[in-house]
Amino acid sequence: MASRVVRKKAGGGATPQAVLRITDGAAPVLALVGGGQLARMLALAAVPLGVQVVAIERSREVPVAGVSSRLLVGDWNQPKPLLELARGVTAVTLENEFVDADALAELELQQVPLFPGAACMRLVQDKVRQREVLAAAGLPTPRFAGVTDAVALERLGGQWGWPVMLKRRRNGYDGKGNYTVRAAAEVGRAWEVLGAGGAALLAEEFCPFKCELAVMVCRGRDGKMVTYPVVETVQRDHICHIVKAPAAVPQAVARRAAALARRAVEAFGGVGSFGVELFMMADGALVINELAPRVHNSGHYTIEACECSQFENHVRAVLGWPLGSSAMVAPAAVMINLLGAGDGPGQPAGLERALAVPGAHVHLYGKARSAAGRKMGHVTALGANPQQALVRARRAARELVFGAPK
Amino acid sequence: MASRVVRKKAGGGATPQAVLRITDGAAPVLALVGGGQLARMLALAAVPLGVQVVAIERSREVPVAGVSSRLLVGDWNQPKPLLELARGVTAVTLENEFVDADALAELELQQVPLFPGAACMRLVQDKVRQREVLAAAGLPTPRFAGVTDAVALERLGGQWGWPVMLKRRRNGYDGKGNYTVRAAAEVGRAWEVLGAGGAALLAEEFCPFKCELAVMVCRGRDGKMVTYPVVETVQRDHICHIVKAPAAVPQAVARRAAALARRAVEAFGGVGSFGVELFMMADGALVINELAPRVHNSGHYTIEACECSQFENHVRAVLGWPLGSSAMVAPAAVMINLLGAGDGPGQPAGLERALAVPGAHVHLYGKARSAAGRKMGHVTALGANPQQALVRARRAARELVFGAPK
Repeated sequence: MASRVVRKKAGGGATPQAVLRITDGAAPVLALVGGGQLARMLALAAVPLGVQVVAIERSREVPVAGVSSRLLVGDWNQPKPLLELARGVTAVTLENEFVDADALAELELQQVPLFPGAACMRLVQDKVRQREVLAAAGLPTPRFAGVTDAVALERLGGQWGWPVMLKRRRNGYDGKGNYTVRAAAEVGRAWEVLGAGGAALLAEEFCPFKCELAVMVCRGRDGKMVTYPVVETVQRDHICHIVKAPAAVPQAVARRAAALARRAVEAFGGVGSFGVELFMMADGALVINELAPRVHNSGHYTIEACECSQFENHVRAVLGWPLGSSAMVAPAAVMINLLGAGDGPGQPAGLERALAVPGAHVHLYGKARSAAGRKMGHVTALGANPQQALVRARRAARELVFGAPK
Repeated sequence: MASRVVRKKAGGGATPQAVLRITDGAAPVLALVGGGQLARMLALAAVPLGVQVVAIERSREVPVAGVSSRLLVGDWNQPKPLLELARGVTAVTLENEFVDADALAELELQQVPLFPGAACMRLVQDKVRQREVLAAAGLPTPRFAGVTDAVALERLGGQWGWPVMLKRRRNGYDGKGNYTVRAAAEVGRAWEVLGAGGAALLAEEFCPFKCELAVMVCRGRDGKMVTYPVVETVQRDHICHIVKAPAAVPQAVARRAAALARRAVEAFGGVGSFGVELFMMADGALVINELAPRVHNSGHYTIEACECSQFENHVRAVLGWPLGSSAMVAPAAVMINLLGAGDGPGQPAGLERALAVPGAHVHLYGKARSAAGRKMGHVTALGANPQQALVRARRAARELVFGAPK
């Protein structure tokens, strides 16, 4: 299982990142922190490259279970299980942005090659610091401020105008940890909901965007970058619902979005696939909403639609290998998320009908149980044009039902 | 791990194949007999469909190891380990054509859904009976005869003209178990080499073909078939070296090859992906060389080049699901096998250089050791035309060296 890894300290660098060389003939071993669907799809991309995958997750029945050489059951927020995971591996990477940055720093102190690094993760996972880095790099973001009490929030609303977005600085995802404060009268309620337990909060100017865009950027350890097509993301209840690739926006907007995304990932010294979410205003202006330091839901379409997927490129990046092309292999692609309708088993009804839809690719995540709103899988369809891809993806997606009442 | 499967006997059928229905919500479990690269690629195609994969192989460090929920170490030629493998699974399928047909029949007697079935495997795995089935279906094959002594072989050579192909009736692959008998004087030597230990032999007319073609056909449990593009296969030392898709043959030849392949798979009542190898003569005439009752080296290109690969369609077929499209997503594709140059570790030299070749897709099989001539991986490249695909695939393949002397 363990690969033979020779580690050397990076010459003169301030960061403790190790330079490593695999001794002849041992298969590289990639350790994934997290065992959900992103880990599963990373593993499915790593294995064909001859990479052995090990992972850590808090329970055994998780999506990565059937596609990894070893699954360590443990708390990935603690240094000790992380160090156990990292023993003898070629590199460690992350499935989510919530892993404790101090625990990650501990890995680097022990010369474990970790990508993206702890410093990058520390900046990204605090929404205030993330926006500070973006702003310092001259990148457009909504106006924002850390807020420590309801009075400050009310003052900002007065200054910017209502509504104001109130967000937890940490651990928010899919709209969880967000609150749209529509008027001064709602401040108390919003503070109660999000600020409970003394959680640190961020206030942000509300952006009346025309549409949401996203760009996947994969950055290698050598700083070289590959940029995927700019896509449009359609949210439903704050969860990514549909991704349309490429986005139907003017070329100039797509070019600007791609350039902003690249500069954002560079600003964090990111290594691997990063998802950059942007708002497009009615006048075509762009602001960066946020950045995910990992493979991202808006890039799932790349499995079938691009020459080298976000997952394969992430594996290549964190192992220090050359990146593959992000070019699309079809004129259009649409991805639709499959969310649980309610509690139930992880296997959907309607699979055979979905597989009968021409051109639709079904991805099920192998979760043990469905729950309302839980991401259970996705469908991607390619098409000769955006409409054809959308129709195909929709036809297949609506057949697949998880945990629906009888 | 075990799925809940409800089995019912097929109404009135002579074969003991079970009709099965997965009870609500359990993930289907597919059992693979064999754990090599074909099992690995089947597993990589099964997992995204939410299928759990279990496998049996004779040792633990095999290509399927990292991509299966359970690897049973045992002899797949014995009914007992096979029955253990099959316990609670949704269906059993095969990675190779050498599994003892009596052991497989035992599975069916125990109501295990096995695809392809034991009767099909029994006919295919004996080269004489395989050709008898093809001939009985009116399909063109080289002239052939079972031979039990050297005198009979010499007589056939006199009748057909030399050379004559002498082949073991069973367990031959990649040219192993074949002998080209060039003249009557070589009969004794050929008989000594292949007939040792009383192995049953087949004599076959030598076909001076212009090129070798292959067609993958996937046949569902309902008899519906999907036919992949006709490809040209280039052998080196009797091992598949290059596959060019589609084959550069006249449309009429491709149509005839596809029709012959479909009729061949039907003649055996095959279920799943089958590889049909054909010889094309100088005048465009076609004869069927042989049929492999499984996913096949000539179909590896379908992973990137076709909408639904031979592996995904095999999984769909044996689970009784609708088949996906075999349409190519690019004008041309070339696959090149990566063979071991000698003894050594399973990890190649040159991986980073190969990954840097635009448009090349690298597949490593994760074998523990390289040996001369052993299949260690393959490269597929798509292209706007056959020449571009070939150049890309060659550039990447020549970088990857397994077990070469320093």
